[in-house]
Amino acid sequence: KKKPLPVSAKDYANRGMSLEEDINATNEYYLEMNIAVIHKKPTPVQIVHVDYPSRSAAKITEAYFKQASTTDYNGLYQGRYIDFEAKETRNKTSFPMRNIHDHQALHMKRIIAQGGVAFLLVRFTLLEEVYFFEARHFLDWYDNSEARKSIPKSAFEENGYLVPQSYQARVDYLQIIDSHYS
Amino acid sequence: KKKPLPVSAKDYANRGMSLEEDINATNEYYLEMNIAVIHKKPTPVQIVHVDYPSRSAAKITEAYFKQASTTDYNGLYQGRYIDFEAKETRNKTSFPMRNIHDHQALHMKRIIAQGGVAFLLVRFTLLEEVYFFEARHFLDWYDNSEARKSIPKSAFEENGYLVPQSYQARVDYLQIIDSHYS
Ligand SMILES: [Mg+2]
Ligand SMILES: [Mg+2]
Repeated sequence: KKKPLPVSAKDYANRGMSLEEDINATNEYYLEMNIAVIHKKPTPVQIVHVDYPSRSAAKITEAYFKQASTTDYNGLYQGRYIDFEAKETRNKTSFPMRNIHDHQALHMKRIIAQGGVAFLLVRFTLLEEVYFFEARHFLDWYDNSEARKSIPKSAFEENGYLVPQSYQARVDYLQIIDSHYS
Repeated sequence: KKKPLPVSAKDYANRGMSLEEDINATNEYYLEMNIAVIHKKPTPVQIVHVDYPSRSAAKITEAYFKQASTTDYNGLYQGRYIDFEAKETRNKTSFPMRNIHDHQALHMKRIIAQGGVAFLLVRFTLLEEVYFFEARHFLDWYDNSEARKSIPKSAFEENGYLVPQSYQARVDYLQIIDSHYS
């Protein structure tokens, strides 16, 4: 059973920053402190037309968003390959699985098979909680949920880890890896 | 001293495919055969304006290329974090270093410090040779070359590894990792 966040840490959660912004700031801190090298992958874009005005930068004038074939973030921490997807939900009692695409689930399986550390960071926004949820647990739900379309919050409490927050590492997920992967 | 490619393998090199296309096809093969999970990062784009036509896909109408802050490719192979930059040159006697940016060199240093496998794949296009060149060797040249702006081809021959080519793995760089990293 997880303990609730201490009040002082909770303060950081409610400043209207998206989970992605908080993770990016955390990764920037990890990078500057030589703790880890973890980056968000650029948004995949299908470029259709580019103008090359003389003496100016090339301008993309027609492009479309492509669906990502992998997860949001990957990188390296103390020799370990790290790979995760970040998701927020305003739901208080469960996490809807529709936000994770089939090829992302397949990607997680491949990462596990190759010995990487694969997980989800899920923020229950209204509860101000971020969970580190190992991909193997996510995949259990994903592969065995014909009918179910969501993972109950209790699964995060039971099998996940509440991610501590601090000023410089707003979503300090590497602490979970330090504690639970040896 | 490296042996030249056998003639039969050389055939594959001269079909007008870019190094990037060949690496992407190789990675696709690695992925499908469950050998490794290595992807090219999407091109980083600064999106300025998006149109949302009703009943059609969102259309990006103004965007600009951003300079990459990391390398072209990363991923996972048998528990190892893999990270590399791919470059082609039509120069026959040296590799011009101007194509590698400062923050890419810094990124390589960080990857080495965290225990990852960092390298360059350099194709000497007119010679039909691709070299696996460890980032530590590249960084030696990079950090100690006030005057010099290029790495002589002989350095690739002495400190690099000629990458074998085959039909399905056109730039079979994991063979180098198998042979030289234990
Ligand atoms: Mg996400
Ligand atoms: Mg390149």
